[in-house]
Amino acid sequence: MIKRLTIFGVGLIGGSLAMALRAAGTCHEVVGCSRSEEHLRQALERGVIDRYTLDPAEAVQGADMVVLAVPLGAMRAVCAAIRGHLAPEAALTDVGSAKGSVVEAVREGFGEMPLNFVPGHPIAGTEKSGVSAAFPGLFHGRRVILTPLETSDLGALARVRTMWEETGAVVETLSVAHHDEVLAATSHLPHLLAFGLVDSLARMGERDEIFRYAAGGFRDFTRIASSDPVMWRDICLANREAILQVMAGYQQDLGLITRAIEAQDGDALLEIFQRAKAARDEFCQ
Amino acid sequence: MIKRLTIFGVGLIGGSLAMALRAAGTCHEVVGCSRSEEHLRQALERGVIDRYTLDPAEAVQGADMVVLAVPLGAMRAVCAAIRGHLAPEAALTDVGSAKGSVVEAVREGFGEMPLNFVPGHPIAGTEKSGVSAAFPGLFHGRRVILTPLETSDLGALARVRTMWEETGAVVETLSVAHHDEVLAATSHLPHLLAFGLVDSLARMGERDEIFRYAAGGFRDFTRIASSDPVMWRDICLANREAILQVMAGYQQDLGLITRAIEAQDGDALLEIFQRAKAARDEFCQ
Ligand SMILES: NC(=O)c1ccc[n+]([C@@H]2O[C@H](COP(=O)([O-])OP(=O)(O)OC[C@H]3O[C@@H](n4cnc5c(N)ncnc54)[C@H](OP(=O)(O)O)[C@@H]3O)[C@@H](O)[C@H]2O)c1
Ligand SMILES: NC(=O)c1ccc[n+]([C@@H]2O[C@H](COP(=O)([O-])OP(=O)(O)OC[C@H]3O[C@@H](n4cnc5c(N)ncnc54)[C@H](OP(=O)(O)O)[C@@H]3O)[C@@H](O)[C@H]2O)c1
Repeated sequence: MIKRLTIFGVGLIGGSLAMALRAAGTCHEVVGCSRSEEHLRQALERGVIDRYTLDPAEAVQGADMVVLAVPLGAMRAVCAAIRGHLAPEAALTDVGSAKGSVVEAVREGFGEMPLNFVPGHPIAGTEKSGVSAAFPGLFHGRRVILTPLETSDLGALARVRTMWEETGAVVETLSVAHHDEVLAATSHLPHLLAFGLVDSLARMGERDEIFRYAAGGFRDFTRIASSDPVMWRDICLANREAILQVMAGYQQDLGLITRAIEAQDGDALLEIFQRAKAARDEFCQ
Repeated sequence: MIKRLTIFGVGLIGGSLAMALRAAGTCHEVVGCSRSEEHLRQALERGVIDRYTLDPAEAVQGADMVVLAVPLGAMRAVCAAIRGHLAPEAALTDVGSAKGSVVEAVREGFGEMPLNFVPGHPIAGTEKSGVSAAFPGLFHGRRVILTPLETSDLGALARVRTMWEETGAVVETLSVAHHDEVLAATSHLPHLLAFGLVDSLARMGERDEIFRYAAGGFRDFTRIASSDPVMWRDICLANREAILQVMAGYQQDLGLITRAIEAQDGDALLEIFQRAKAARDEFCQ
């Protein structure tokens, strides 16, 4: 049971977490904090939080669980603002889509690594953002990856794990570096490819016609290009190295396909497409 | 009203067309023809066709509408096999995903361009293939692009148009070259990117783990990589030039994104992502 949960950034992820825990009845009080009073009032009116404050130091008073659910670029400033105000027994976690940069931001913001900090990342989301898009079932049946540090307190780890399990999520642990590599491949790269494709088509002369004849597969394929541009800029900057590495591998693979088409090498194309279809069918039916 | 419809290739597209026309009650008899008696018997048992033959010349006897719904690579051989057997009043059309290559194949197969030939392409499909995946509603509300030639008989054009309208499709016309350019951008390129991404990940050392952490967006994004590899090989070979052109443009755009990440140029990334999101949201809600 969480007595007082403080959530920084009551948007899609932070809001959904609060709603899920309230629905599960495992959280006594939720305090919200961010920059905009209007957004916080909206969260209050939706019943997502019990109260709010614009003052980070006040927000963490008496909290036994503190969740950083702000954009990656805002993590450091929030930590700096709560430094010295966090109760020693409070567990601290975050939901950032890249983990190495958050670990760095937390260390910088606090001036040292808080022992109760357990980095986390729910593998769940939609293309929408803001508290109006939040819903309690967002994490149900989805994975949450925790990337505990060598310094992470085991009690704090257990409490963060329990919190996510109470949302219906399946919790797993990975190292920070491994998380960032895997997510670069499965999430960050696909988003960049989709943004790149839509931008590429949008810049063509006949863009209206191009999109007019786009079929069902195109809609699915490009849905992730409707995601929040600011969040994706942050992710690109935060997970730069791992993304550049998978991007380089991908561009090589695309080069293989291109050269096979140029050379009219049907066998090479068939081999690539068959291997891809087999992998897709095996792993994601 | 079609008296006798002959369909070459009673698979996903050919089978769905037959089912849609029978459901609409606008087709008296459907004759199926392909290579495999087993597949044709399956079509008969599902009630998709009234009878079948393995002999193309026999299949077109007395037909007033002939539809080529075989893979792109098989169009020419089917035409050569029915040359001299088609009734002069029969309308001839196809459903191939690229049009320039089919026009060429028909001309070669017949030794000249049949005046009643009207190329066509339904912008509808699934990742499945074969008659077992066919269903009568496949074309409902979807676009069908006809690309009539200068030589195309206007009566044949009208009959092909009416046939597709009776499936619930919206029929439009484009030139052959324009169709191939637009489809290269909206359909062929996305499929190649998805095949390339899945293949790229499948070849990584940690492939099981990679796919394990793939989230919902990844499933949508890669669904089209489950499509038939043979069909996509054919499309790559058939629409080679238009595909290579859009692929080159796309690789340049990906290079822009990569360089912006390398240079940690958040403004450039934000601009690309915002433009893409705006275009996606405008055209494909
Ligand atoms: N969306 C996804 O698919 C997804 C999935 C997994 C993880 N994540 C991660 O979750 C985090 C939040 O993403 P989200 O999708 O929930 O975004 P969101 O819906 O836009 O919510 C972000 C929240 O942060 C607040 N905020 C923004 N800048 C702030 C600042 N400088 N100081 C304090 N609060 C600030 C905003 O409220 P105010 O406007 O009132 O400040 C808003 O409530 C990000 O770190 C992201 O990487 C996202
Ligand atoms: N799937 C899509 O999303 C989609 C969308 C629009 C257009 N198209 C086009 O539609 C056409 C058919 O695609 P589909 O998805 O319907 O494929 P499909 O389900 O695999 O059906 C193809 C049919 O063609 C027959 N066939 C294959 N090779 C043949 C040959 N050499 N001679 C005679 N018959 C042959 C097959 O039957 P046997 O095995 O008995 O020969 C099968 O019935 C292709 O030209 C494709 O470009 C497909």
